[in-house]
Amino acid sequence: MLNGIRFVLVETSHPGNIGAVARAMKNMGLSRLVLVKPKEFPHPEATARASGADDVLAAALVVETLPEAIADCGLVLATTARTREQFFRVVDARTAAERVVAEARGDPGRVAVVFGTERYGLSNEQLLAAHALIRIPANPEYESLNVSMAAQLIAYEIRMAALGASLPPTEREAPLATPEAMERFYSHLEAVMNDADFRDRTATGTHLMGRIRRLFSRAELDGNEVNILRGILTAVQNKRRRAGDEH
Amino acid sequence: MLNGIRFVLVETSHPGNIGAVARAMKNMGLSRLVLVKPKEFPHPEATARASGADDVLAAALVVETLPEAIADCGLVLATTARTREQFFRVVDARTAAERVVAEARGDPGRVAVVFGTERYGLSNEQLLAAHALIRIPANPEYESLNVSMAAQLIAYEIRMAALGASLPPTEREAPLATPEAMERFYSHLEAVMNDADFRDRTATGTHLMGRIRRLFSRAELDGNEVNILRGILTAVQNKRRRAGDEH
Repeated sequence: MLNGIRFVLVETSHPGNIGAVARAMKNMGLSRLVLVKPKEFPHPEATARASGADDVLAAALVVETLPEAIADCGLVLATTARTREQFFRVVDARTAAERVVAEARGDPGRVAVVFGTERYGLSNEQLLAAHALIRIPANPEYESLNVSMAAQLIAYEIRMAALGASLPPTEREAPLATPEAMERFYSHLEAVMNDADFRDRTATGTHLMGRIRRLFSRAELDGNEVNILRGILTAVQNKRRRAGDEH
Repeated sequence: MLNGIRFVLVETSHPGNIGAVARAMKNMGLSRLVLVKPKEFPHPEATARASGADDVLAAALVVETLPEAIADCGLVLATTARTREQFFRVVDARTAAERVVAEARGDPGRVAVVFGTERYGLSNEQLLAAHALIRIPANPEYESLNVSMAAQLIAYEIRMAALGASLPPTEREAPLATPEAMERFYSHLEAVMNDADFRDRTATGTHLMGRIRRLFSRAELDGNEVNILRGILTAVQNKRRRAGDEH
C-alpha cells in the first residue's frame, strides 16, 4: 500500500536533494518517485546521497510538467512553507499522513504528495492542482525546511499513520476526479460564465477562477460528482442554444 | 524551553551533515548543538548546508568526548538504528519527544539527545550513558537513516510535543457562510437547474440535491465564495431572461 504513494519533486535544483529524498522514502517504505524537470539528473551527487536507495532513484520517473506527474491521480497534497493558505484546506503533516494512508488503502496508486523547488516552493498555479496543502509546524522565525527534510518528515508520518492506521480506508462511490477531468470542468464552467457575461463584483483583487478552483479543490470531487456538475452546465448551455434557435 | 534541549553529534564524518542538523534544529526551534570530535569542523560544506542556521553552527560547542558533552545533563536519550535494545529502555521517537519536553519543562537546559557516527552509530559503551534509546520506526529492509534526517525527525517530534496543538488558528478572508446563506444558494442553484431542464443521468439511486449539498459542504465555503457562486447563477438567469425578452 505504501508502495503506491507517489512523491513528486518539482524542478529540484540540487541533485543531492533528489538522492536524499530517495533515501528518506526508502527508509520509510515508500518507493515511487516522480521528478518534474529536475535541473540535473541523473547525477553522481544524487546517487551518493541516495546511499542504499539507488533502486528508488533508478526507478524514478522523469516528466516535463506537474500535470503529467499527477495526471492519473486521485488525492493530491502539496507542501508549502509560505502562508498563502487562504481559500485552501490546510492540514498539518500528521493529519495529512492519516488522509494519505486512508486514501491509499481505498484507491491504491493514485495518491501524490508534491514538493516544490528549494528556493521558491510551488507556484500559486501549481498549488491549484492540490486538494489540500500540508503544513509542517516549524519555527516561525525560520520556517523553510530543506526539501529532503520535508520529504523525510512526511514519509515518516505516513509510515507512522500506516502502522497505527487510525482512519478506516476511504470508501467512495467513484474514484476522485483526475486533474484532467477537473481541468475540463473548469473550462466548461468558464465558458458558461463567459456566455452569461458574468462579471465578478465580490472577489475584487483576487483572481476569480483561481478562487473558484480552490473552493472546488476543497470539495474533493469524485468522478461522478464532476459529471453531475458538468451535466448542469451542459443543460444550461443547451437551454440557451434552444432559446437562440427559437429566436 | 526548546532552547535548552541539546543535540549531541558524536564523531560526525561529513561536515555537510553537521550543517544539515543545525538547520533542522533551527527549523524546529532548537539551538543548542554540541559536537564530539567532528572529523572536519568548521567547514564550508557545513556552512552551506546550514543555510540560514549559521548562528546555531557558530554557537556549537566542540568537545573531545561524549562524557564532556553531557556532563551537566539530566535526561540523556540516544538514537540507534541497530537492534541492540536488550536491557535498554527503548522508546519510539514520538514517545521520546514527549519525555524530552516534559523533562525540559521541569529541568531546563539539562536534556540531551545523542546521535552517533554516520557509519557505526553509537558504540555500546557510548549507549551506556543514555537513559533510554530512541528508535525511529523505519522500513525493516532499509533502516539506517542519515544522521541529519534522524535529527530532523526527532526535532520535529519535540516541536510537536511542545506545541500540543499543532495547527495555528484558521485564517479566513470572510467568516464561513451561514447555514441560511447556504440554503439560499442551494435554492438558487436548484432554480437554475430546473430552468435549464437539468435531468440527472449520473447519480442514479441517490438524491441529487443531497449529493450536491454534501459536495459543497466539504468545500467549507466562506461568505464571499457563496456570493461569487450566486453571482454566476444570477448572471445565467439574467442572460436567459434577456434572451426570452428578445424572443
